Amino acid sequence: MPEVHSLHDVFVHELRDMYNAEQQITKALPKLIKAAESEDLREAFETHLDETHSQIDRLEQAFDLLDEKARGVACDGMSGILSEGRMVLEDGMPGPIRDAALIGAAQRVEHYETAVYGTLIAWAKAMGQNQIADLLTSNLQEEKNADEKLSQLAESGINDSAVHGNGAAR
Amino acid sequence: MPEVHSLHDVFVHELRDMYNAEQQITKALPKLIKAAESEDLREAFETHLDETHSQIDRLEQAFDLLDEKARGVACDGMSGILSEGRMVLEDGMPGPIRDAALIGAAQRVEHYETAVYGTLIAWAKAMGQNQIADLLTSNLQEEKNADEKLSQLAESGINDSAVHGNGAAR
Repeated sequence: MPEVHSLHDVFVHELRDMYNAEQQITKALPKLIKAAESEDLREAFETHLDETHSQIDRLEQAFDLLDEKARGVACDGMSGILSEGRMVLEDGMPGPIRDAALIGAAQRVEHYETAVYGTLIAWAKAMGQNQIADLLTSNLQEEKNADEKLSQLAESGINDSAVHGNGAAR
Repeated sequence: MPEVHSLHDVFVHELRDMYNAEQQITKALPKLIKAAESEDLREAFETHLDETHSQIDRLEQAFDLLDEKARGVACDGMSGILSEGRMVLEDGMPGPIRDAALIGAAQRVEHYETAVYGTLIAWAKAMGQNQIADLLTSNLQEEKNADEKLSQLAESGINDSAVHGNGAAR
C-alpha cells in the first residue's frame, strides 16, 4: 500500500483491490460455468458474470468521481479464495458433488465481496461521497442476491443430489 | 484434496480447511489486539479470540462425531485474507485510520467464515448430521455477532475519527 495520510488513501487502495478482485472473478466464472452440471447453476453463474462486468463499470465510475485512475492492485484475498475454487475444478468429483462444492466456493467469493463493499460503503458515507456509496450499494446488492440464489439452488436439490448421488439437480 | 467419492469426503476436507483457518486466526488476532488504538475495538478483538478458541473446540467435537482425526489442511483463502490484514499492520497508518482499516480487514475474515460455516451447515443437514449442524451453527452465530459488533464500532465513531482525524474513538 502506498503511504497513507488519510482515509481517502486507504479507500482508493481498497477500491483498486476490489477492481482487481472483480477482474479475477471475470476470469474464474467461465470455468465454473463450464464445470457446472446443473443447468440452473450454470445460468446463475452466467447471470453473475454479466453482473460482474456491470460492477467493474460502476467501480470505474467511482474512480472517475474521485478523479483517480482506474487500476487494480493485487487482491491476495480473492487470489486465495479462487485458488481453493480451482482445487474443486481439478478434483474430478462426481457431478452433483462438484456442483455442491462449486456453490460453496462461489459463496466464499460473494461473502468476501459483501464484506469489502460493506466497508467501502461505510467509508464513502463517512467521507460524504454519497454518489460513490450509491454505486457500491448496487454492487453489494448484486453480490447478496447472487449469494441468496446460490443458497436456494443448494437447498432446492443440489445438496440432496450430492448426498444421494441421484444425478444432476435441474 | 484427497480423492472424493462422496459429499462426506468434501465435508471432512472443508472442515479441515476451516480448522486450519481458525488456527490461523488465533495467531493473527493478537497482532490486531496490539495494533488497535480504540479500547472498544481492542476488547472486541479480545472477545473474538476467546470465541475462536471455543470454535476450535467445537470443530474438534465435529471431527469426533464423524470419527475423523482433527487436523487442518492449508486454507489458502484465509491465508490470502490475512496477508491483506498484515499490510494494514505494517503500513504505519495514523491510529484512527488504522483502526478503520483493521475493522475492514477483520470483517473480510468474518464474512469468509460465515460463508464456509453456512455451506458446512447446509451439507451437515443434508447428510442428516444434525448434531454437527448445531455445533457449526454456534460458530456461525459468533462470526455474525462479531461482524455486527465491528460494524457498530465503525459507525459509532471510528470511521468519523478516521475521516476527521480527531484522535481515537473510544
